[in-house]
Amino acid sequence: GDCGRASARPGGNRVTVVLGAQWGDEGKGKVVDLLAQDADIVCRCQVRRRGRLGPTAPGLEGWEKRLIISDRAHIVFDFHQAADGIQEQQRQEQAGKNLGTTKKGIGPVYSSKAARSGLRMCDLVSDFDGFSERFKVLANQYKSIYPTLEIDIEGELQKLKGYMERIKPMVRDGVYFLYEALHGPPKKILVEGANAALLDIDFGTYPFVTSSNCTVGGVCTGLGMPPQNVGEVYGVVKAYTTRVGIGAFPTEQDNEIGELLQTRGSEFGVTTGRKRRCGWLDLVLLKYAHMINGFTALALTKLDILDMFTEIKVGVAYKLDGEIIPHFPANQEVLNKVEVQYKTLPGWNTDISNARTFKELPVNAQNYVRFIEDELQIPVKWIGVGKSRESMIQLF
Amino acid sequence: GDCGRASARPGGNRVTVVLGAQWGDEGKGKVVDLLAQDADIVCRCQVRRRGRLGPTAPGLEGWEKRLIISDRAHIVFDFHQAADGIQEQQRQEQAGKNLGTTKKGIGPVYSSKAARSGLRMCDLVSDFDGFSERFKVLANQYKSIYPTLEIDIEGELQKLKGYMERIKPMVRDGVYFLYEALHGPPKKILVEGANAALLDIDFGTYPFVTSSNCTVGGVCTGLGMPPQNVGEVYGVVKAYTTRVGIGAFPTEQDNEIGELLQTRGSEFGVTTGRKRRCGWLDLVLLKYAHMINGFTALALTKLDILDMFTEIKVGVAYKLDGEIIPHFPANQEVLNKVEVQYKTLPGWNTDISNARTFKELPVNAQNYVRFIEDELQIPVKWIGVGKSRESMIQLF
Ligand SMILES: Nc1nc2c(ncn2[C@@H]2O[C@H](COP(=O)(O)OP(=O)(O)O)[C@@H](O)[C@H]2O)c(=O)[nH]1
Ligand SMILES: Nc1nc2c(ncn2[C@@H]2O[C@H](COP(=O)(O)OP(=O)(O)O)[C@@H](O)[C@H]2O)c(=O)[nH]1
Repeated sequence: GDCGRASARPGGNRVTVVLGAQWGDEGKGKVVDLLAQDADIVCRCQVRRRGRLGPTAPGLEGWEKRLIISDRAHIVFDFHQAADGIQEQQRQEQAGKNLGTTKKGIGPVYSSKAARSGLRMCDLVSDFDGFSERFKVLANQYKSIYPTLEIDIEGELQKLKGYMERIKPMVRDGVYFLYEALHGPPKKILVEGANAALLDIDFGTYPFVTSSNCTVGGVCTGLGMPPQNVGEVYGVVKAYTTRVGIGAFPTEQDNEIGELLQTRGSEFGVTTGRKRRCGWLDLVLLKYAHMINGFTALALTKLDILDMFTEIKVGVAYKLDGEIIPHFPANQEVLNKVEVQYKTLPGWNTDISNARTFKELPVNAQNYVRFIEDELQIPVKWIGVGKSRESMIQLF
Repeated sequence: GDCGRASARPGGNRVTVVLGAQWGDEGKGKVVDLLAQDADIVCRCQVRRRGRLGPTAPGLEGWEKRLIISDRAHIVFDFHQAADGIQEQQRQEQAGKNLGTTKKGIGPVYSSKAARSGLRMCDLVSDFDGFSERFKVLANQYKSIYPTLEIDIEGELQKLKGYMERIKPMVRDGVYFLYEALHGPPKKILVEGANAALLDIDFGTYPFVTSSNCTVGGVCTGLGMPPQNVGEVYGVVKAYTTRVGIGAFPTEQDNEIGELLQTRGSEFGVTTGRKRRCGWLDLVLLKYAHMINGFTALALTKLDILDMFTEIKVGVAYKLDGEIIPHFPANQEVLNKVEVQYKTLPGWNTDISNARTFKELPVNAQNYVRFIEDELQIPVKWIGVGKSRESMIQLF
């Protein structure tokens, strides 16, 4: 046939990627759970504290046998975490605002990584003497930068040695492992991106972002995999917008609308308990996330949270000094100043949580979904109408 | 036709990417020059010092009108560069070895970026007051970490203001600019990746690496572009291997072979004048770079440098403790210990610098190229046989 172009590309399996498309908390976990049911391999591109290694959820029995940790993953040490707390405090004192980081040490680890003083899993498991030496250098650097920091170097090394013996069987060459999986027999490989587009270190609302790439490129740099092997890219979009902590938020509703979204949507931070800021859906932001990620379809979550509204607004354009701007501003002060143009759609004022097909949705809810598809030019593949796994309508 | 799969993918133009496949100095520049001749847009994914902004090469007249700088690019300040020098010195003192960085401040800028205290072009050009405030905080942080560092904050800000006025017209929303280029009329877009695969912060020979992603994923995270728009990925491979500075180098020839490669190849650092370490071609390393980058074709440069050898070796496998290992080790101590298995090929002992077609090459030179293609399963598209632009044989 005339498929020359497609077949000329290097072959191999393609991974399915799931990405948060806003500021996080879009319900990515539920979409991943759904897709993971028939996946052969599930990858996460994220730095995790070692405390997170234990089984945290039911159904994870035997996880130690199935979990694989990349040998190129950087290790988060206790002093990274301690430094994270100190840094947040300093930022508060110096500039009067903190970043609202989760204080898990992720930022400091990325700084160590960039400074080429970071330590990786392969260092821990291959050569403990070399590891110890470099650990001491790094720990002493931290001590001299943060004089209040107390680090029991020998004690830490003892702990790390024990930890090493436990995880050594799980540590593998991640590049080779994935290469084999991509180029062996057909396999379903699912990748969960870290965080969400607007928290990406390069394209998010810097400086209120995480320290890594949360966009689709981060999947390639995170796993060491060529772009040709990226298949479907699913963006997870909450039917409205939320944001944690400070920073510009154009469609925010700092009023009873926002409060209604906050309460109905249980928009609280999972670890902090802090209320999330809430507002209308922002299509300018989503178009921007789509430019970077190239979503092939969307999962629209928490549509049921909008059940109570008689009318629903959607941000469709930004104006700056009276003129519509075509892009999503990079600078936070500028983003703070934009004036949002809204399109108002009629609400459905009906409980949709029992709908299981698109047709069962009220016509106004259908129109809301279709409006989003038309504006973004991306098909919606799933619609979330409730907390349970069954309350996810699949459209195609 | 039955091309459903290809046409279902989101459309747009595709960029052509050129990447170094070894430790740098592969002759990427020449390949980029060749391809740039009929490109509409050329992108570089690299942090550049502001000193580099001036016209550095002839033929760049009018460059100020044609150059576009992404507003999300981080700015390298003088104190970043100063800190780079201090850090190298500290590493030398503490661990007895430095990283051999170019001391241009790139590492410190990535650390500031990760710490979310970095400043970007969009901050400089949109809101100089906010910029100044954050500049002061950052400069004071540097002063407290490096007490010997002297920073004339007000003077720097004055300089930056002047600089800002000059570059403001060139600063654009990079994501939107590229999106328009990808989704407008057909355009040839060429992207030059930074450095080379083995210098990648995640997949290179850490810690002797640069602070950014030099593999193809770095093109997506650098430009904010989806993987679907990545087209050809050309790997630039020198016909032998070189490495600058310290670090494991399995096929190194610390003998008269290496010296011959070094002299014939003029393997000196451009700015430092330091001799580059030289050795045979390493296919294990190239297979690894290919796993990550998915090269669609290769440019094999400097084949003429091998003209003098009666036999030529090629590293084809690594042994560790007597056993062949399937992967390229992540840990430097392990990489230091591998024993290379070589395949010996007959040399051609002829001056090939005047060859302009593949057929004009001696059969042993042809066989060397075919051997590489067969082992890597990647077609060689260009062969470099001399310094000039014409001395590049194109195969298809
Ligand atoms: N009402 C409602 N809740 C949902 C829906 N989708 C997810 N949630 C809830 O939102 C919360 C966050 O979901 P999770 O998948 O953990 O999100 P993640 O943090 O983005 O991975 C959980 O309490 C989910 O039950 C939905 O469609 N409707
Ligand atoms: N003899 C020879 N020299 C080459 C060839 N290709 C590149 N060079 C030289 O190698 C040097 C580095 O090339 P350049 O393109 O600047 O490399 P880059 O630093 O990797 O971008 C230059 O002096 C080139 O002229 C080749 O095929 N043969």
